[in-house]
Amino acid sequence: MKVLMYGLGSVGSTMAKMLLERGASIVGAVIASESKHGKDVGELLGIEPLGVTATTDAQEALARDPDLVVMSIASYMDDMIDPVRACLKAGCDVISLSEELMHSWRTSPEETAEIGALAKEHGARMLCTGHQDGFWVSLPAVLMGTCFTIDEVRGSAAWNVDDFGAELARDQQVGASREEFDAWAATAQRPPTFGRTSLHALAAMAGLDVEESTTTTEPAVAEHDLHCAALGEDISAGTIIGFTDIDVVTTKQGVTLRLEMTGKVYAEGETDSNTWEVLGQAPVKIHSEGLQTHWTTCSTLVNRIPQLLEAEPGYRTIDELPQLRFRAGS
Amino acid sequence: MKVLMYGLGSVGSTMAKMLLERGASIVGAVIASESKHGKDVGELLGIEPLGVTATTDAQEALARDPDLVVMSIASYMDDMIDPVRACLKAGCDVISLSEELMHSWRTSPEETAEIGALAKEHGARMLCTGHQDGFWVSLPAVLMGTCFTIDEVRGSAAWNVDDFGAELARDQQVGASREEFDAWAATAQRPPTFGRTSLHALAAMAGLDVEESTTTTEPAVAEHDLHCAALGEDISAGTIIGFTDIDVVTTKQGVTLRLEMTGKVYAEGETDSNTWEVLGQAPVKIHSEGLQTHWTTCSTLVNRIPQLLEAEPGYRTIDELPQLRFRAGS
Repeated sequence: MKVLMYGLGSVGSTMAKMLLERGASIVGAVIASESKHGKDVGELLGIEPLGVTATTDAQEALARDPDLVVMSIASYMDDMIDPVRACLKAGCDVISLSEELMHSWRTSPEETAEIGALAKEHGARMLCTGHQDGFWVSLPAVLMGTCFTIDEVRGSAAWNVDDFGAELARDQQVGASREEFDAWAATAQRPPTFGRTSLHALAAMAGLDVEESTTTTEPAVAEHDLHCAALGEDISAGTIIGFTDIDVVTTKQGVTLRLEMTGKVYAEGETDSNTWEVLGQAPVKIHSEGLQTHWTTCSTLVNRIPQLLEAEPGYRTIDELPQLRFRAGS
Repeated sequence: MKVLMYGLGSVGSTMAKMLLERGASIVGAVIASESKHGKDVGELLGIEPLGVTATTDAQEALARDPDLVVMSIASYMDDMIDPVRACLKAGCDVISLSEELMHSWRTSPEETAEIGALAKEHGARMLCTGHQDGFWVSLPAVLMGTCFTIDEVRGSAAWNVDDFGAELARDQQVGASREEFDAWAATAQRPPTFGRTSLHALAAMAGLDVEESTTTTEPAVAEHDLHCAALGEDISAGTIIGFTDIDVVTTKQGVTLRLEMTGKVYAEGETDSNTWEVLGQAPVKIHSEGLQTHWTTCSTLVNRIPQLLEAEPGYRTIDELPQLRFRAGS
């Protein structure tokens, strides 16, 4: 299998090494940075030279005739649509980590329809997956399968602002006062939450028809003084350390899906966690802690590839594929 | 859909009511007790009369031409083979809670092959599912799908001897001394553990080929004095309150699967729990508590029925079916 890496940042690099380990042949990488243009992809990965170069020119890279493009460049449709168009027009299968595109029928219906038509026209397949496929969709969908009736499904997940950079910390309003947070929240133009598209994918996997989707946002406030490594600043108690997006999706079948996603500066001892609780007959719950989302993201994408390659051409979503499963060695 | 209930105990009765709620038509029930013979099934369920009777005569019940037989009579192949033969020869689809038959290719290969051939010959489908489908196979299989490499998968589950009767408490050696336990363990002839067949199903779902299966058994010893409700006896510290079966399955792919199943008298505050941990790149873990296995068992079977009816005739196993999923209302 000839693979083009579209994006070679932290997750792109891990996935490239996984694919090499599984026997794929990498034909190049599309990168944004001029300083990496023309460099050997192996060198950029910190391994032996691969004899293929990174390039800022996507068309040139697509002309190397990859079978599959592995994309890790952006979360939202606005940034994904042009690169996806180019890959599909070149007849390449595409697998990506874009959170919105995991299930974009409601957040970007026109672009989604266009991508689906393009993929079919060129006999290509496209799928978006990642950490949220396993932990926010497939696991709760199986959990729901152990219930006879369901009133509500409640998920909560937390991630640490300090695992990312200063830019994201500022996006999460770290260091703001409550008044500043409220002023921001009242006017902020934000793209669709990852929670919303995950709940839409979960609804599809559980055979539920979405009626309404809402998102509300609540501040996370420091209970004690703490240090924000991402900003290199001490934060005093009472200051904003991030926020929680609360997504609620109602369905025609009367089942409510809810996901609370908290991105904040962690206090000592807090780790990434994920809980899903199904309220119904009978209630069931699963809980995870200490998740390493960098690895779950990359592994899930790599494990989904064989299923994508066996699917019908088109813009596929994870609810249409077989159950997520481990792939030993190939 | 015309359904025959084969077994109408506690779980059989719950499933019968669920099936009625989903619009199925119950044509009768096969029961063991002479005192229930000839009684209306609705009356036995504690609901309005259904106009169909319970009978001890399976052949008579099968002559009522059910489409599907829902079986909750036994855990092991030895007790299942004759009733299953009768149902398949009558051309009925069969879904059952038999733990061994969830994946019996290694524990009872001849009978499994015979059932498979019979099912195909008569155009019938058979499947075994239940609590272990969701919590011991499907959930850990999805969790494994978020990993790139796996060294070991470790499950642990616990159930309370006091939720069942005195007979089971004695089977679990409750009240024995350590010496009595060791003497029992040295000579006990026990059927295949539920852990073993669950791990065989998990291996199949994860695409792993089983090499070796072992079971060892360790006593659970009371740390403090406690009361065993099932026996109506006080148990003193140091006495046996049950045991743990430790199943280990090695695979050709180098992945080891392990499940520790503890059945013991709970101390105050202990609840049924279930943990799965995958050791590999990267480690992941899910944990559940407060599970109501009566309900998860019945709901999982009911939710699997539409998938069974769409499957090819034969002795189907859960790894061959689509992902376990919720069915809203039908």
